[in-house]
Amino acid sequence: MKTIFADYRSAGFLAYLSSSVKDNKDKNLRFDKEKYDDGDNYNPATGVYTVPYSGVYLVHARVYGFEHYANHYIKVNGKAVTYTTEFDKSYAHQAGSTSVVIELSAGQGVVVVPAFSGIVYGDRDYMATSFGATLLYPK
Amino acid sequence: MKTIFADYRSAGFLAYLSSSVKDNKDKNLRFDKEKYDDGDNYNPATGVYTVPYSGVYLVHARVYGFEHYANHYIKVNGKAVTYTTEFDKSYAHQAGSTSVVIELSAGQGVVVVPAFSGIVYGDRDYMATSFGATLLYPK
Amino acid sequence: MKTIFADYRSAGFLAYLSSSVKDNKDKNLRFDKEKYDDGDNYNPATGVYTVPYSGVYLVHARVYGFEHYANHYIKVNGKAVTYTTEFDKSYAHQAGSTSVVIELSAGQGVVVVPAFSGIVYGDRDYMATSFGATLLYPK
Repeated sequence: MKTIFADYRSAGFLAYLSSSVKDNKDKNLRFDKEKYDDGDNYNPATGVYTVPYSGVYLVHARVYGFEHYANHYIKVNGKAVTYTTEFDKSYAHQAGSTSVVIELSAGQGVVVVPAFSGIVYGDRDYMATSFGATLLYPK
Repeated sequence: MKTIFADYRSAGFLAYLSSSVKDNKDKNLRFDKEKYDDGDNYNPATGVYTVPYSGVYLVHARVYGFEHYANHYIKVNGKAVTYTTEFDKSYAHQAGSTSVVIELSAGQGVVVVPAFSGIVYGDRDYMATSFGATLLYPK
Repeated sequence: MKTIFADYRSAGFLAYLSSSVKDNKDKNLRFDKEKYDDGDNYNPATGVYTVPYSGVYLVHARVYGFEHYANHYIKVNGKAVTYTTEFDKSYAHQAGSTSVVIELSAGQGVVVVPAFSGIVYGDRDYMATSFGATLLYPK
């Protein structure tokens, strides 16, 4: 049992954009700032979270777009697992979010990929655009 | 303790729409494709998740509408527990989502119910419209 | 181990607005009705959830605005941790939601703060606007 809890504690991470980026369409969003990264499984240089243990994870992404769009994918090993749409013609600021509990296998890479090329808003002081994962139970 | 973890592992499920449906206003959305269904508590033919253990669950629904609306209820035993609005006149694609941690009792039925009659988008390749539940702790 | 599970069970809460409020810009939203409050850590009179144990929590807020806006902060000890935008000129009803897994320390106060002054919709019968937290693992 102790081992399982050790596992839990070395799987979770949360990262966010501390400044805005653009031209990120179909590319991994590189959340540059970590709030925590238990076990060091997330890489801010690539935006990839490498799954440490096979199990069921809560994966949560929030994308704040500045140019009408905030639609995005969560991809696992390059393949889209979720797609969330968000667009509004009348107002530039848009938030799209995805919160889903999925099965993941050890070694898989999880990323967030915007489906638009405009600005993705990042803020130094709070999380406008963020990405995290938490192991809920091993499998 | 082992028993509790066995419980966790036989409670969670995740399902999604693999093709679009319409005329679903005020009716259970039947997520036809299961990603996982530990313990076989979700029924894709009816859209009902039958709660296996009394406890606190993360329930998460994502509804992708194709005709301006994505507003929806989560209902427990036929009664609305959450309502989430989503409508945009200017653009047909809309995503509404609900992620909430609620108490559920063994035997209760949980469903997602659109509050609109237009197309709900389903995709074979990724989860555009999905529904899941995970036991966080028994009670 | 028993202690840890006792902790889990005395940390979670879920509250919602049972009637609408307004003029709540930059002020704690006081979710007046509790669905559950294990350990009595949430105060409906102030809107503050006081963290009982240091650890990693799922914090989830849903804000239903009635006058075009639903943008809001989650703040910890008065400091914005997340900001979620939501505005639509064409339609008054707006839902904004934030679901994020963050580290919290025992004694910190967590609140939801609208960034607009219009009506925040509350309903007696279901959760339109809600706020909750759940301990996922202690730290």
